Amino acid sequence: MLPFKTLIKIDKSLKLPVYQQIANCLIGLIQEGILKPGLFLPGSRLLALQLELHRKTVIAAYEELISQDWLVAVPRKGVMVAANLPVIRPRSFRKTVSAYDGEAAFSFHTIPTVAIPAKPVFTHTPLVVNDGFPDARLAPLGAWVRECRSVIESPRYFKLLMYGSPTGNEALRREMQTYLGNTRGLSITADHVMITRGAQMAIYLAAAMIIKKDDYIIVGSPNYFFADLCFEQLGARLLHVPVDEEGIDVDAIEQLCASKKIKLLYLITHHHHPTTVTLSAARRMKLLAIIRKYNLPVIEDDYDYDFHYSSAPILPLASADHGGNVIYIGSFTKSLGLSIRIGFMIAPANFIAGAASLRRLMDLGGDNLSEQALANLLADGTIERHLKKSNKVYHERRDLLCDLLQSRLGDAVQFTVPTGGMAIWLRFSRKISLKKLSEKARAMGLQITSGEQYHYGTTSQNAIRFGFASLNNKEIAEVVGILEKLVR
Amino acid sequence: MLPFKTLIKIDKSLKLPVYQQIANCLIGLIQEGILKPGLFLPGSRLLALQLELHRKTVIAAYEELISQDWLVAVPRKGVMVAANLPVIRPRSFRKTVSAYDGEAAFSFHTIPTVAIPAKPVFTHTPLVVNDGFPDARLAPLGAWVRECRSVIESPRYFKLLMYGSPTGNEALRREMQTYLGNTRGLSITADHVMITRGAQMAIYLAAAMIIKKDDYIIVGSPNYFFADLCFEQLGARLLHVPVDEEGIDVDAIEQLCASKKIKLLYLITHHHHPTTVTLSAARRMKLLAIIRKYNLPVIEDDYDYDFHYSSAPILPLASADHGGNVIYIGSFTKSLGLSIRIGFMIAPANFIAGAASLRRLMDLGGDNLSEQALANLLADGTIERHLKKSNKVYHERRDLLCDLLQSRLGDAVQFTVPTGGMAIWLRFSRKISLKKLSEKARAMGLQITSGEQYHYGTTSQNAIRFGFASLNNKEIAEVVGILEKLVR
Repeated sequence: MLPFKTLIKIDKSLKLPVYQQIANCLIGLIQEGILKPGLFLPGSRLLALQLELHRKTVIAAYEELISQDWLVAVPRKGVMVAANLPVIRPRSFRKTVSAYDGEAAFSFHTIPTVAIPAKPVFTHTPLVVNDGFPDARLAPLGAWVRECRSVIESPRYFKLLMYGSPTGNEALRREMQTYLGNTRGLSITADHVMITRGAQMAIYLAAAMIIKKDDYIIVGSPNYFFADLCFEQLGARLLHVPVDEEGIDVDAIEQLCASKKIKLLYLITHHHHPTTVTLSAARRMKLLAIIRKYNLPVIEDDYDYDFHYSSAPILPLASADHGGNVIYIGSFTKSLGLSIRIGFMIAPANFIAGAASLRRLMDLGGDNLSEQALANLLADGTIERHLKKSNKVYHERRDLLCDLLQSRLGDAVQFTVPTGGMAIWLRFSRKISLKKLSEKARAMGLQITSGEQYHYGTTSQNAIRFGFASLNNKEIAEVVGILEKLVR
Repeated sequence: MLPFKTLIKIDKSLKLPVYQQIANCLIGLIQEGILKPGLFLPGSRLLALQLELHRKTVIAAYEELISQDWLVAVPRKGVMVAANLPVIRPRSFRKTVSAYDGEAAFSFHTIPTVAIPAKPVFTHTPLVVNDGFPDARLAPLGAWVRECRSVIESPRYFKLLMYGSPTGNEALRREMQTYLGNTRGLSITADHVMITRGAQMAIYLAAAMIIKKDDYIIVGSPNYFFADLCFEQLGARLLHVPVDEEGIDVDAIEQLCASKKIKLLYLITHHHHPTTVTLSAARRMKLLAIIRKYNLPVIEDDYDYDFHYSSAPILPLASADHGGNVIYIGSFTKSLGLSIRIGFMIAPANFIAGAASLRRLMDLGGDNLSEQALANLLADGTIERHLKKSNKVYHERRDLLCDLLQSRLGDAVQFTVPTGGMAIWLRFSRKISLKKLSEKARAMGLQITSGEQYHYGTTSQNAIRFGFASLNNKEIAEVVGILEKLVR
């Protein structure tokens, strides 16, 4: 008889019932060819004795395996490994490693990526300068949870918990019509709205709907790295157009349009990522004329529109006459905090319908509960109040940081005060190595990037985005204090 | 002077401040070429008179536009449209339609789709037979909201609200190790886990990582339609292999592997969609040998594993020795309710890392707050208790439905009692038109599909999936009552 005592491993600390542990072990032994088809297993009394278990436990395991067709009960002879199972030559007596332990046995694509730390190291770095994230301490998360509760408790929302739609929650799409009309002068209906998983999904979807392999598309230089990576992944050929103080170079765009078929233009009209510049009024007008002349499809990524300090934000291209060419993208992630990822895409209704079919293949649809909660917060004015409050706070933080950078770091850095958004584009003197600065900062309890990701596909400007929104006044002063020591 | 009274439309019922409404209108007029570069606008006093507004409001609008560079203040002469703006030939005096009103001006891809109703019509149909959805009335949503609150209120979770990772919440990935070990005998670590937006995102990601255009892949016939559509969208050539009472035909798979390079096999081992059959023990063993022999990459979609009534579920292929070839996919959507979309993918660590880079381009990452809440519910046993309870309830509902179908519909229908899951594969007599049945049912307050989507890419069997889990005993009886009237 086989050494079942050794072959069958029982761990009574596991939640899995012992009879199922026995059954699983026996299946493993059958699959590895150690227990061959037609083999009779020891009687339940004998096996129970060997394993020091109650006989009923072994019987339960055998019954389980009989019902799953691994074993067959033969009258008056006992329990046999099913004869119809394929014969396997045993390869090792008892493998202890998991099939997942090595590398994948098959080949797969390499995905374009940038070197940003996968996860921040918090243990040693209480202070974090991020890319321009909102302050979760200000986000109306309490109100959001309250709305989630009201959704699950109210019978009128019950159906929401059952079904979702790839275009997103209906109530939220209707609220978007009012919200975008009031804040951005956009004239749309719910049919022009798709609710997405943050702005990033909207970028991916819109681009995937338009780009074919080897298509030419225009992006800024520099550009939001996750947009560039996304377009490269979709097989596009990227034409980089300079971004200066007035935003993307519109004349260069026109020259490219005149010389080749351009399938897409991606641009960030407010607080361009990474440089934070805003596209000037004159360039907007020129660009609208180009868009109409060439029927140029545009992704207008306006992720930062709601945060503006020096004056009201400039209306997006989407609210002017673009001849049905602009796909407008934005996000609530900046107002609700990063953990709640709700963004949107505005486009002609037939494009939204097509994109919905693609989105369904990617994740079926959004999270109806969260989306309804957001719709309620838009309807009752919570989001508007929060935006007012946080704009005020971020405005102060921007001004404090700019003051401190100027007075404490002097000519080690250069920057233009951004009109809005959550970050400053901080250019360091060429004498300073950002890589070394970043390493030394970490030792002093400050996590700050070396900025490589911002220069993806372009020449380094020795600059980083310095997110000020998530740091309070005390934290801003501490961070600048550390930098001051490091740049001297 | 231009008729500003007509050109500038003020709506005092809007939340947008009046001065911004004026500013927006003026921008529109400039962009349309009605107000030309170099044109002087009326003085603020005069315009205020015309518009019947306070002069301060007009001044505020002018100041806003000066700060945005649309207007220029010329000392002693007044306010002028900026001379550096491009000259536009006006095309219409005042367009009233939105640029989004027509169709998209550019072309875009056609996405493969199936004819399932985009959104169920609830108003007239109180009863809905769905595809096999859980009952949101049973889902532990109260506990879930409670955990969300504890996450936002606890300082130790604060960082979660700031950062996410494309592989998902760390605590949840660690909980998955225990959960999948206990329930499925899977031997993995957190590095083998990616948390996704439901199982669908895991299918899309895994397939997109492997498939190149025109690759051959094997799927069941019939197959889960959203998987087929996803593979087609990614450019694969689908080879359909029959699914019978024992699951997918493994000999046919081997023949295909021997004759051409197969890049992927997609299969549903438990409660196959749509037919609900479970892959037999003998075929599993044969299949594992084929997988190892041909190094055949496999997506094992085990979306329904947690729901099993007749015996314990069969261990997945993923927990046997597959030589690092099986990508294992599952979901919590069936336990938490459809509105909370959390799924997972298990694969070798290098594949997970690659897939994370792709996922980051699609939506940056998951919802850290929801995922932490789920991790807490797994850790405190809530999910386990809920699964026990709902398995009991669904077991009863399955039995009740099967009894009623047999006794009331007789030979109008045929079905095999499924060992688990949330649906019955109900084959109707060829004499019954499901299209007509579906239409007539709706008039009687019952929404039931005509089933076209289940026969995508294969021959119709005149069958539908009858989801029983979301209907209570009373509702099941009502539905069968309506069907009884209709099939007679």
